[in-house]
Amino acid sequence: MLDETVKIPSYEDMLAAHELIRPHIRLTPVRQSDYLNELTGADLFFKCENFQEPGAFKVRGAANAVFGLGDEQAKKGVATHSSGNHASCLSYAAMLRGIPCNVVMPRTAPQAKKDTVRRFGGKITECEPSTSSREEAFAKVQAETGGDFVHPYNDPRVIAGQGTCSKELMEQTGGLDMVVAPIGGGGMISGTCLTLATLAPETKVIAAEPETADDAYRSFKAGKIIADDAPKSVADGLLVPLKDLTWHFVSNHVSEIYTASEEEIVDAMKLIWKYLRIVMEPSSAVPLATILKNKDAFAGKRVGIIVTGGNVDLDRLPWMKGD
Amino acid sequence: MLDETVKIPSYEDMLAAHELIRPHIRLTPVRQSDYLNELTGADLFFKCENFQEPGAFKVRGAANAVFGLGDEQAKKGVATHSSGNHASCLSYAAMLRGIPCNVVMPRTAPQAKKDTVRRFGGKITECEPSTSSREEAFAKVQAETGGDFVHPYNDPRVIAGQGTCSKELMEQTGGLDMVVAPIGGGGMISGTCLTLATLAPETKVIAAEPETADDAYRSFKAGKIIADDAPKSVADGLLVPLKDLTWHFVSNHVSEIYTASEEEIVDAMKLIWKYLRIVMEPSSAVPLATILKNKDAFAGKRVGIIVTGGNVDLDRLPWMKGD
Repeated sequence: MLDETVKIPSYEDMLAAHELIRPHIRLTPVRQSDYLNELTGADLFFKCENFQEPGAFKVRGAANAVFGLGDEQAKKGVATHSSGNHASCLSYAAMLRGIPCNVVMPRTAPQAKKDTVRRFGGKITECEPSTSSREEAFAKVQAETGGDFVHPYNDPRVIAGQGTCSKELMEQTGGLDMVVAPIGGGGMISGTCLTLATLAPETKVIAAEPETADDAYRSFKAGKIIADDAPKSVADGLLVPLKDLTWHFVSNHVSEIYTASEEEIVDAMKLIWKYLRIVMEPSSAVPLATILKNKDAFAGKRVGIIVTGGNVDLDRLPWMKGD
Repeated sequence: MLDETVKIPSYEDMLAAHELIRPHIRLTPVRQSDYLNELTGADLFFKCENFQEPGAFKVRGAANAVFGLGDEQAKKGVATHSSGNHASCLSYAAMLRGIPCNVVMPRTAPQAKKDTVRRFGGKITECEPSTSSREEAFAKVQAETGGDFVHPYNDPRVIAGQGTCSKELMEQTGGLDMVVAPIGGGGMISGTCLTLATLAPETKVIAAEPETADDAYRSFKAGKIIADDAPKSVADGLLVPLKDLTWHFVSNHVSEIYTASEEEIVDAMKLIWKYLRIVMEPSSAVPLATILKNKDAFAGKRVGIIVTGGNVDLDRLPWMKGD
């Protein structure tokens, strides 16, 4: 059950978000591959959010939060804790508005992630890689800066922002039977549910998750949030648990959650790199991996796939030997 | 000097080619990266021909040749010798029309290239990796099949087809100061010259070439074709010499040829993979490598770049160790 103080974003919030962020994001292309269509028996439409300037759909929610701030709050900027795409996308959006962005990040986070946040003007405060250290560091940063906390996914502004992606996808394709997106914390899936529930209620929303980090799948089957302690997967963007707001959307509007093994995810990633010729993250390959595994569910359908991000370490690709 | 029997393709041939091939090719997107613009000081527009279904711009010229055949000749199909993108693109175009495509290919060509040609229905005749063996095998194949010879670049139909790419690029961008494309045999550069000489005569055409296979550069400076014997470069699509028809365009309309080292090419390739998040070949990275090396020539300009192809072996990327 949702706490009564939690604001559930509405379809109108998503429409307003799209107007607000449109000048600051790219209208990413939708791509198709005859070969991947043959292979799956479905008509696949890949929405290339990896082509956002900071490389991930998360710039949508981040930009909606940043550009929605009143001028007084904007002076104090925004703050978050994240070691992934949310940190760089929030820094990027803050840079566009010219306001501060403070990010608490474990000191063990990859150097490349820290470099990206700094390239976009984000200020990093390092913590130890534990929840208690992170919370302590974040409380201190927020007290000192007064920065508005923008959660990576459990935030109505963020979910409304992510929802703009499937609005574009429906406009660009002229209609779909299903939309498949990877699920981690559930921000993109929630935004997709939010948008399609009104815009195209007959279009199914399907989530795709790594087998080795299948807490959303088990939550979905159990009818309540199950959070795992530090799951592991090559799909490193999908290791965080659902929260109350995203669970609201997942439990009310998602049709199915499918899972795929690590090997299936890496195989699907290579297929997309090879035949769609785009650079995307392992997390973004989970939808195709689950489609290949459940062909009957998708055969003959028009299926949208959100390619969520494209920030990978080119020197450590998952199919390289010795890594 | 061109032999009087050689037909120089005209601007009208290019326009006709575009009408003919439009249903069979993709209108590939033009992409930008704020980061690469900052890095170069130029406004770069990347035309993503790697997104053609068979992964290279060569589908344009191939489709123009294939769909331009009369019905009688079409029954006998087409034939070529190539171990690269031309072979797969010609096979692909022939498959679309439902006619035979015979390809003579050295038995030493990578298995992946052979697989691609066969996937598109092309029939491969293997020869030894020498010019004499190839010519002998090709003469035999042509005599037996009566297939129409479509040269990879020194063919007016092919050049007219490649010219459709810069027509789209100009329409998509609304105008450019320069267009930079890699140069090997000169098919894409010739098509670009053909189109821009009429459509945008003030737009400079610039060719980019590997230092270690710089026969076009030396030809350009010497005022006559200089062909090298088996040059080597990571940009393996650019190792063939100019021929009379492509030399005609290069010598008459190209403004400059710049070169880049092997290391510069690989560095530029990684930059494009990382910041534009597309999978493309080393050959397609030569333009950015030369722009980074000659920043003053491009600073403040609107520069189109043809991303010529995206067929790479993901298990043998040039920055992987041990390869």
